[in-house]
Amino acid sequence: MTSSDVEQTDPELQELREEVAGTTGEIIRLVARRIELAKRIGQVKSRESLPIDNEKVEDALLEDVLRECKRLGVDQQLGAKILSTLLKESKKAQRTHVGGRQQSLITPMVMMAKATEIERTGKKLIRLDVGEPDFRPPKAVLDAVSNALYSYKTYYTVGRGIPELLTALRTYLATRYGYREAAENQLVVTPGGRFAVYSALATVASEGDSVVVIEPNWPAYKEGLDYIGARAISIRTTMEEDWQPSPESVKAAIRSNTKAIVLSYPANPTGKILDKARFKEIVEIADDRGLTVISDEIYNDYAYKPCPTILERLPKRYILTSSLSKAWSMTGFRVGYSLAPAETSARMLKILGLMITCVPEFIQRGAAKARECVEEVSRNSRVMKERIDATTSELDKIDALELVKPEGAIYAFPQAKDPAFDSSAFAMELLEKKGVTISPGTGFGEYPRCFRISLGQPQEILSAGVRKIGELLS
Amino acid sequence: MTSSDVEQTDPELQELREEVAGTTGEIIRLVARRIELAKRIGQVKSRESLPIDNEKVEDALLEDVLRECKRLGVDQQLGAKILSTLLKESKKAQRTHVGGRQQSLITPMVMMAKATEIERTGKKLIRLDVGEPDFRPPKAVLDAVSNALYSYKTYYTVGRGIPELLTALRTYLATRYGYREAAENQLVVTPGGRFAVYSALATVASEGDSVVVIEPNWPAYKEGLDYIGARAISIRTTMEEDWQPSPESVKAAIRSNTKAIVLSYPANPTGKILDKARFKEIVEIADDRGLTVISDEIYNDYAYKPCPTILERLPKRYILTSSLSKAWSMTGFRVGYSLAPAETSARMLKILGLMITCVPEFIQRGAAKARECVEEVSRNSRVMKERIDATTSELDKIDALELVKPEGAIYAFPQAKDPAFDSSAFAMELLEKKGVTISPGTGFGEYPRCFRISLGQPQEILSAGVRKIGELLS
Repeated sequence: MTSSDVEQTDPELQELREEVAGTTGEIIRLVARRIELAKRIGQVKSRESLPIDNEKVEDALLEDVLRECKRLGVDQQLGAKILSTLLKESKKAQRTHVGGRQQSLITPMVMMAKATEIERTGKKLIRLDVGEPDFRPPKAVLDAVSNALYSYKTYYTVGRGIPELLTALRTYLATRYGYREAAENQLVVTPGGRFAVYSALATVASEGDSVVVIEPNWPAYKEGLDYIGARAISIRTTMEEDWQPSPESVKAAIRSNTKAIVLSYPANPTGKILDKARFKEIVEIADDRGLTVISDEIYNDYAYKPCPTILERLPKRYILTSSLSKAWSMTGFRVGYSLAPAETSARMLKILGLMITCVPEFIQRGAAKARECVEEVSRNSRVMKERIDATTSELDKIDALELVKPEGAIYAFPQAKDPAFDSSAFAMELLEKKGVTISPGTGFGEYPRCFRISLGQPQEILSAGVRKIGELLS
Repeated sequence: MTSSDVEQTDPELQELREEVAGTTGEIIRLVARRIELAKRIGQVKSRESLPIDNEKVEDALLEDVLRECKRLGVDQQLGAKILSTLLKESKKAQRTHVGGRQQSLITPMVMMAKATEIERTGKKLIRLDVGEPDFRPPKAVLDAVSNALYSYKTYYTVGRGIPELLTALRTYLATRYGYREAAENQLVVTPGGRFAVYSALATVASEGDSVVVIEPNWPAYKEGLDYIGARAISIRTTMEEDWQPSPESVKAAIRSNTKAIVLSYPANPTGKILDKARFKEIVEIADDRGLTVISDEIYNDYAYKPCPTILERLPKRYILTSSLSKAWSMTGFRVGYSLAPAETSARMLKILGLMITCVPEFIQRGAAKARECVEEVSRNSRVMKERIDATTSELDKIDALELVKPEGAIYAFPQAKDPAFDSSAFAMELLEKKGVTISPGTGFGEYPRCFRISLGQPQEILSAGVRKIGELLS
């Protein structure tokens, strides 16, 4: 008798399989029933003009499901995933009854595409939207890349990165932050900080999980979580509270399915630097709750007061992401890195290997050289400080705006005094009437009254841009 | 009354929400029951020494679920996704009873990492594992990259790619394949063919879907599908049948949840080229069934008989992926591209924007120059043909092996006559005793009797490697 005969004739197996099929069918029928209920909820909400999203209801359901999973010995992650699938379907069903209130978000990338299109017609714009410094990359880096090219460093490398670059990065972290290398922490070279962030999120969170983020923030965190199917739990900070998240708000944001918290200081778009005590407190909360701290430290070399780093005291679960894009003005080289415990690092590397293979070796060689370009980094940082000072005082003169002065990074994030201000509409008008691009605040969270100005332009252009903003606002 | 008061007091809403919570709880209890049943199935299978995977049972369940979804008006994709989640959990539960039979697959990348490690100790290896040509990239490309660097083409570009490269690629496709540009088909520049393939798979398939692939093949297809949570339905081809998939086997592989079929000719690792009639027949089957044809044409410039291309007659749903890695020997530049209908292309671009932002502009400028390097491509192709001829006749002299002569690509894929041959063990022995690296056949499907030799080495090294293979086999 072959094994397929056994499979066909074993009566116990047959019976169990029929039960499995029956149970599966029942599950599908309950799913259908649940969708039916969601549609009826949608009708009620439409009648009463209620919003579709209700976090409190969702949270209560999640806790119910996780409790039931625990009681029944079902993997809680599985429960969270099934609930997440069901919730998405519910919202879809409700939307067929409640009119879509989908905002059209003008993200920095959308803005950039539109501006590039206009520029191609020959029109000259003042570009204050793109988050990249205008500085030239270090000459030594260009030479290193070019030399590597002509030495045929043009083949595959191991995914993690060439030893020369890994050593250079370790030296940089040691010199700059007093980081002490340990075998259990491993670097991975990535095609830009963006990929480091994506692979960090994808490594710690799956569909049905949640990750805490602090708004306003770089949209890539939420984009990544959406792509993975995980939920971003946003802690909303306000200008009035100096853009500071309180430890209480962090505690309140953590759910049973929360896997990580993303910190990034100096912050994009506010330029806020959290003081070290507050940062430490938040990291300790994460550590207590078994969460991974993802610390995106890409702007750390543009900090004008002491800036916290995860390297000072590594929690058990952490991922540091960074890049050479900003400090060395190497955005277009697409080279960044992550540092994480070995097992986490191996999982991130697997994603990189699957999608990218490796970062071009000649670029890695240039990046290795960057470590020595300390003077360029200092100069870039100094110039940026001057721009922050000058731009802040210019923005302060515009009556319609208020601003918390940036303490770092390469942006200003003013807020209109008018509570009804719509920064998306303003950005489009500014582009059309004044030829100036900015990034509306809605790209960074629910901040329609704010907009981001990138300081990655020479001061005279920045001043001209701010003047035009003032003109349109008055 | 605020809307939150209404939400709390509307009795109909309250009642519906309680029903939703009740239904959700019931679903979780059924999931627990299903896992319980899976454990008991695992016990039976363990007792009867039956394998965990049973495609027939899974297929029947899938058809049941999709039928039930249709009857109840539930989105079939949702049903397939829930079933996929349940099946994964069932297998996990069964595995706790059936001993793990997980093979340790030695993929090309694993092999490469091990070899690189040995090389770092100073030992010289004959590297026949890495799938990259040893040719130098065109001098004009190096110059173009270097010039672009020193002209500060070192900032972000739009995600899709710079117009100069998009134009160059269109010209290449027109000149080489008679492709006629149409507004509805759009190119995206990617960091390597690998990312084009990943974003293609992720765009057409979601968790619970399936995609047909033809084995033996490049492991990236299956890796990508695993990552997405979609199933790879493999059509197994054999050396005895000239590595040809029959139209019947393609039809038989398609399930109700199948979204795409991946074709790639000349094939990695076999070097097989499908004749145009057969290719057309398979594309038509896909077209009839509403599937996307993903055609990975990365080896098209290494073809020694007429090779089919999806460009000859674009089906309604298609994605062409390719790269400059092989034809121009530009593996380490990480630059490839995809061509697809506008809507598909926009979705692929979104993934790229989310993870990568863009390919470095100075690399894009080099890639644009590559189009003009027609002579280098011809020379590379001619040399590869000579290597295929020489290596084939050398392999033919090894009694223990048989080989279907490659018609294209840059590999040979011999098969041991011994039915019990274990190419993974052989590869490790060959590395340790003879200092030669090859890629075991298990990296490309269930082919323990086969192994892949990359022809990306000068002929004398290839010959030395093949001689050592012969020595170890005799």
